[in-house]
Amino acid sequence: MKNFADKLVDAIIEKKSVVDVGLDPRLEQIPSFLKEEAVKEFGEGFEAAGSAFFEFNKRIIDAVESQIPAIKPQIAFYEQYGKAGIEAFDKTVKYGQKRKLLVIADGKRNDIGSTAKAYAAAHLGEVDFAEGKKPCFDADCLTVNAYLGTDGVKPFTEACKQFGKGIFVLVKTSNPSSGDIQDKELKDGGTVFELMAEFVKKWGAEIIGEKGYSSVGAVVGATYSKQAKSLRKIIPQAFFLVPGYGAQGGGAKDVLPCFNDDGLGAIVNSSRGIIFAYEKEEFNCKETEFEKASLKAVEKMNKDINSVLKENSKLPW
Amino acid sequence: MKNFADKLVDAIIEKKSVVDVGLDPRLEQIPSFLKEEAVKEFGEGFEAAGSAFFEFNKRIIDAVESQIPAIKPQIAFYEQYGKAGIEAFDKTVKYGQKRKLLVIADGKRNDIGSTAKAYAAAHLGEVDFAEGKKPCFDADCLTVNAYLGTDGVKPFTEACKQFGKGIFVLVKTSNPSSGDIQDKELKDGGTVFELMAEFVKKWGAEIIGEKGYSSVGAVVGATYSKQAKSLRKIIPQAFFLVPGYGAQGGGAKDVLPCFNDDGLGAIVNSSRGIIFAYEKEEFNCKETEFEKASLKAVEKMNKDINSVLKENSKLPW
Repeated sequence: MKNFADKLVDAIIEKKSVVDVGLDPRLEQIPSFLKEEAVKEFGEGFEAAGSAFFEFNKRIIDAVESQIPAIKPQIAFYEQYGKAGIEAFDKTVKYGQKRKLLVIADGKRNDIGSTAKAYAAAHLGEVDFAEGKKPCFDADCLTVNAYLGTDGVKPFTEACKQFGKGIFVLVKTSNPSSGDIQDKELKDGGTVFELMAEFVKKWGAEIIGEKGYSSVGAVVGATYSKQAKSLRKIIPQAFFLVPGYGAQGGGAKDVLPCFNDDGLGAIVNSSRGIIFAYEKEEFNCKETEFEKASLKAVEKMNKDINSVLKENSKLPW
Repeated sequence: MKNFADKLVDAIIEKKSVVDVGLDPRLEQIPSFLKEEAVKEFGEGFEAAGSAFFEFNKRIIDAVESQIPAIKPQIAFYEQYGKAGIEAFDKTVKYGQKRKLLVIADGKRNDIGSTAKAYAAAHLGEVDFAEGKKPCFDADCLTVNAYLGTDGVKPFTEACKQFGKGIFVLVKTSNPSSGDIQDKELKDGGTVFELMAEFVKKWGAEIIGEKGYSSVGAVVGATYSKQAKSLRKIIPQAFFLVPGYGAQGGGAKDVLPCFNDDGLGAIVNSSRGIIFAYEKEEFNCKETEFEKASLKAVEKMNKDINSVLKENSKLPW
């Protein structure tokens, strides 16, 4: 079974892109015509929201799939609409995979070992049911919060090994308050986020693929490039999932320290900046053609990051 | 609007119980006759699992509701079955509330501020939809992982204020590896979990109810009574949600340090020990009457903890 990190490297090189698109639908920003169509078909309940989300995602996936290796649906936005939202999430995962994209489920799931096993089964593995086992969401990768320590992470790494999947562990997140806990200095040296990185190294050591990268990666915000530089040294074998580009203020130069010298080791996320690009005048697109604006925004982001990688001799293809 | 902590204090005193029952259905332990009935009605897909879960929960809730103030469904077990599982979770929340129980949704949700807002809306607040706003799961309380810091927690505390809800923040979890990150000593003194407790104090300061307790509580494992003692001093105003009694090895004496001198300030969870009590010979119940074993197990646990509280002059009624 192919290692997740190897799949990610291959997809990055094939698509000539280190970008993933965050599918974080916010109802107030979904084009009105899509919402109206959904309400006409499903009435005013949560089914309409779920249906609008999936139609929205589908058109964006179709528009951008040739330009990117991966998508990252954020489960929070779907979970808001109960079972209808979860159905839209599930259909998005499957549709992305049908279009040959890797799907990173952004759930930041976490629990003690015996319960974490259920989350790992739900998102990466197989679930017990009446007649044996079968997969549920079956994403390619899941984000994980590891505040609970090793035995809370093990069920996820076991699923990675068994099913060729990956996880990204929260190390240094992109938000303004991420330092509250993560930046605190430890008595024995280093910070909490550096300690977390040491664990990422340990947890990922057994799942390193042929290209030298582990299927246990790290979430490292584009908004903290100094910290990214220090982390790149602690965990050279880890892929970084990098949020914070665009809407949160990070630019191409800020994400550069997240890459290794081979130009690999990072995948940079943009959500609002891509999926709601139709709201921006610069892309000059009608609301009914919102996905064309998303394509233009992805092309711009690819060009932006690739040119900085090239300038620094880090273009991996 | 009544403060969540006040609701919890009132329910504890009314029921003369500091116990909550964890509704963590594991398919392999659900009585066979329930699974067979569900498969007969829904076939062999995930709908059957969801239906069996809800029927199982309903019978347990009916059996034990007079003996306990709260239930705690663990979302991981439901999430495994996609939309069918989420429907069972949603119905469990609503059924528990119909039977006048407080419902603690154990999701350990977490994200950056703008996304945490979606989780807060899903579980505690109201969600945008075509015709305005309405609640989704609408639990009374949610567990939260605060590794991301203050701005990741604020949307949850805002929802607590606005809707009379509560959160329990993971501070010192019950699992064997919880020390990996949580026990690390900081350069400025104290440990990571004690730092987290200081934040719990800060985040909860604005939501203190009439009884002196805050709606921002802390998860503190029964398996770490020494740490609980230190935490009780740092955050006297916080309710502790205490997992780890029973199956994980904690006993009534171990949970004692989680209580304040008024006998309040802690709610002790048991999941497997109660809901699958029918598997134990001591309760002498047929599988078809599994809920009778659960009632006996709850009564035993109440007696066990209440007698230790009484011995130590901490019985709060």
